[in-house]
Amino acid sequence: MNGTVAERVAAAFDRIEAADRPEVWISVRDRDEVLREAASVDPELPLAGLVFAVKDNIDVAGLPTTAASASYAYWPAADATAVRRLRDAGALVVGKTNLDQFATGLVGTRSPYGAVRNAWDPARISGGSSSGSGVAVALGLVDFALGTDTAGSGRVPAALNGIVGIKPTKGLVPVTGVVPACYSLDCVTVFARDLALGRAVAELMEGVDPADPLSRVAQPTAAAPARPRLAVPAAEHLDGLAPGWKDAFAAAVRRFASVGAEIVEVDIAPLLEAAALLYGGAFVAERYAAVGAHLEKHPELIGTDLDPIVAGIVLGGKDKTAADWADDTARLAALGSAGRAALAGCVGLLTPTTTGHPTLADVAADPIGANARMGRYTNYANLLDMASLAVPAGFVDGLPFGVMLTGPAFSDRALAELAGRFANPGIDVFVVGAHLAGQPLNVELVTAGGTFVASTNTAPAYALHALATEPPKPGLVRVGSGGSSIKGELWRLPASGFGAFVAAVPAPLAIGTVVLADGSSVSGFVAEPAALQNAPDISHLGGWRDYLATATQ
Amino acid sequence: MNGTVAERVAAAFDRIEAADRPEVWISVRDRDEVLREAASVDPELPLAGLVFAVKDNIDVAGLPTTAASASYAYWPAADATAVRRLRDAGALVVGKTNLDQFATGLVGTRSPYGAVRNAWDPARISGGSSSGSGVAVALGLVDFALGTDTAGSGRVPAALNGIVGIKPTKGLVPVTGVVPACYSLDCVTVFARDLALGRAVAELMEGVDPADPLSRVAQPTAAAPARPRLAVPAAEHLDGLAPGWKDAFAAAVRRFASVGAEIVEVDIAPLLEAAALLYGGAFVAERYAAVGAHLEKHPELIGTDLDPIVAGIVLGGKDKTAADWADDTARLAALGSAGRAALAGCVGLLTPTTTGHPTLADVAADPIGANARMGRYTNYANLLDMASLAVPAGFVDGLPFGVMLTGPAFSDRALAELAGRFANPGIDVFVVGAHLAGQPLNVELVTAGGTFVASTNTAPAYALHALATEPPKPGLVRVGSGGSSIKGELWRLPASGFGAFVAAVPAPLAIGTVVLADGSSVSGFVAEPAALQNAPDISHLGGWRDYLATATQ
Repeated sequence: MNGTVAERVAAAFDRIEAADRPEVWISVRDRDEVLREAASVDPELPLAGLVFAVKDNIDVAGLPTTAASASYAYWPAADATAVRRLRDAGALVVGKTNLDQFATGLVGTRSPYGAVRNAWDPARISGGSSSGSGVAVALGLVDFALGTDTAGSGRVPAALNGIVGIKPTKGLVPVTGVVPACYSLDCVTVFARDLALGRAVAELMEGVDPADPLSRVAQPTAAAPARPRLAVPAAEHLDGLAPGWKDAFAAAVRRFASVGAEIVEVDIAPLLEAAALLYGGAFVAERYAAVGAHLEKHPELIGTDLDPIVAGIVLGGKDKTAADWADDTARLAALGSAGRAALAGCVGLLTPTTTGHPTLADVAADPIGANARMGRYTNYANLLDMASLAVPAGFVDGLPFGVMLTGPAFSDRALAELAGRFANPGIDVFVVGAHLAGQPLNVELVTAGGTFVASTNTAPAYALHALATEPPKPGLVRVGSGGSSIKGELWRLPASGFGAFVAAVPAPLAIGTVVLADGSSVSGFVAEPAALQNAPDISHLGGWRDYLATATQ
Repeated sequence: MNGTVAERVAAAFDRIEAADRPEVWISVRDRDEVLREAASVDPELPLAGLVFAVKDNIDVAGLPTTAASASYAYWPAADATAVRRLRDAGALVVGKTNLDQFATGLVGTRSPYGAVRNAWDPARISGGSSSGSGVAVALGLVDFALGTDTAGSGRVPAALNGIVGIKPTKGLVPVTGVVPACYSLDCVTVFARDLALGRAVAELMEGVDPADPLSRVAQPTAAAPARPRLAVPAAEHLDGLAPGWKDAFAAAVRRFASVGAEIVEVDIAPLLEAAALLYGGAFVAERYAAVGAHLEKHPELIGTDLDPIVAGIVLGGKDKTAADWADDTARLAALGSAGRAALAGCVGLLTPTTTGHPTLADVAADPIGANARMGRYTNYANLLDMASLAVPAGFVDGLPFGVMLTGPAFSDRALAELAGRFANPGIDVFVVGAHLAGQPLNVELVTAGGTFVASTNTAPAYALHALATEPPKPGLVRVGSGGSSIKGELWRLPASGFGAFVAAVPAPLAIGTVVLADGSSVSGFVAEPAALQNAPDISHLGGWRDYLATATQ
């Protein structure tokens, strides 16, 4: 048996027990059974020994599928196609997670198995409907987890719990073995803490399944260009965000610009109008077609095993007419066309993933309204056949904030590539001496993948000394008010290159933090105090090149 | 003014008057107005001076659009996009044609403007709903005509009137300015007597129109291979055809095989089941969404301006629920998947276009049943996003018989290419002398595109003479019973190559008809009587090669 795989499994079960979040799970497998399964995993498989959780509207053979309703539960004969492909790749299921019942909700509170509390603040919602899967990943209980996404259920929990949520283009991942919410719109999704792992899992699940007539192969699409155009909503469509979220979004936009995106403001009114059709029109009848018969058969369970909010929504689909559906379909086609026109030439649209982060009490007080506000930017993606993914983008008031890239069908890879640049934007380093362009050690920056950003100056709070090293090097020292503004250059390195570069910096120099003239802080060369002995202060010359010019005269 | 264009227009109006088929038209333009328009047509345009008719559910500026209901009629401000593109290409509209009201029907009898009588037998139906357009083309009143096709309205009239009907893939031709029947399924179609003209017209109408959100560009697809696989229904799905139609279809299958198609029998049950959903399920609600409000506003007109059969069908869509629609959509997805699997590897499916040719009296006696039978092979194409075209395939009992090629979305060009081979399969020529393989003039067959078919013999009713020509040539003469069976070869030439070949045959030889040993008649070399003087009868030798062998000994 591969010790590493067994250790991973055992550690996951230990974490699940230690976390004390019972509402995350609807069923957890027996630890010994999973350990026995782990013993037979080929360690060469791409996901060998990774443990994952499965939203409980997706079949796993040997466990009941409840869709968060005990009265609805059945024992599937086989794994869902998506699950089977991941198990075939070496991953191990540890359990089934809680959800908004019948995947109807974006809050994570609509379950007789309990409201799922947020990973960062247990007084707040986890987001839904893939609530348990999102929190299981955020708490580190599993390596990744599967969700589903019709309105935004694979993305909202990612935003509220500070993780990555990938919603592939409809049909790329078969929905065989998934309890339908809206059959024609449902997608299997991935939560992960790391974008690269999430993408790898999503790709392993892709591929046509004859048992799912809506499954399809990806159309070849262009990769994201070096300088992709990225749409952002015009200001009016960012109104109503939670306090601090507008600024956090603006910072994310700046960061996308800094990694090469050309930002274009567009009018997303057609998308928002399409989003409103998901629950506000006839399409909700697809939920009634899926589980309405069960609700009508068990009116006595509404309020106990059957969530009353969910039941109200699903049964509301009964009275919609096919002519309403036809009208909504035609309206949706027009909105889709207008939306595509607005986004033409852009690799995708950048938005906040959701609009705010309610407490459990907020949702209890206004269950329909609070839920509707969560889906403002997510509800249109599946209706309009778009790919989408949610990524963390910092924190507001100590809670995660997330943004989302949404693009045309089959843009999955291009969106992920752009999100990868955002997640790993490179690290800026301020250099003042032998690493300046044209100086002897500049080659170290270039070979680490570095690119020149700008010539700039420190804040007027530094002194520059000429150290007695070979080759001669400068020592930058923060002296506080009354100091000099020292000339230098900003270079940008990929994270991996930066690590290697820092590791190779010899004493008495070090990489610390330097405050620049514009007030920003970046990584940069600083000198150890001991180095300044017998090292003349050359601050009055302005910079290292000026010193060299003086020294060689 | 271009004399030819004016003459074409004048001739078209003369034919319209002489035809005495008033029910074909709902409105005909003023002759002088069209002549004035003709005067400004650039004769270099691709359709310069061609005259066409437009089904009266498609807008033409300056004429009312009625959809065959005076109470519904409106005066459009602009041409439909499809019409405008053809007028921009130099074609001239002469009038608007009758139809099954609101394009609801496949019979051509459901119109307060009168039942449209068949072009070949006025006691029979024209087919519908594009009845007037089909008959106008079949009678030669116009060069081509536009129809629409939701269930088969652009193909059934083609079959029953012996012309070509082209139904492009959904969305290739915008439906801007078309009265919707089922908005998500409607296509603008072309009727023509000639496939090449029909295809040229269809391609001129193609192209995205921002005003039609369902319009789309063609996806690139492979051309039909030299030996394409062509699916045909298994025998059980050809039951119920009109007397003689099964044999006529079998002959068409043989002809497709003779022009290079590899015939594959498939189970088309999923397609037929999908076809039944068009009127038998919730999708009929789309017709209610389109014109239901008008029917409900004018109950007093049902039986006069509003056709009672059409009204019954459209109003029947009111009670369908959105959940029914969701169920039917899921069922359709499964049937589409099964249908695609059945046709996998085939360029398309060959079927009869319709199932029989009722009289007007037959349809009056059973208006719903007779109509339903017409759509057996057509109703699935738009539901399953397929391209389709109908072509003439001979006659049964003096009335046209037609077949249809239906393939995946965007297979339009491949289907047309295959239909072109069927329509122009090449001409077999029987040769007996210097054109035999290896003989001096065989090169003339090869350069004309000829291919060897078989070595065969004439019926035992011929004599072969050695003519006194240079190079020496044989003279084949039909002598009747008691004659000889002369050896020769069958070569197949494309129609154009055959024409050039015949034109170059020198006296005293000619191309006439030769009866072969199997009783079939083909084109072949015959000799003028005068040539036989001083030309010894060499029939006893059996053939020209035997004679040459004798002569050189």
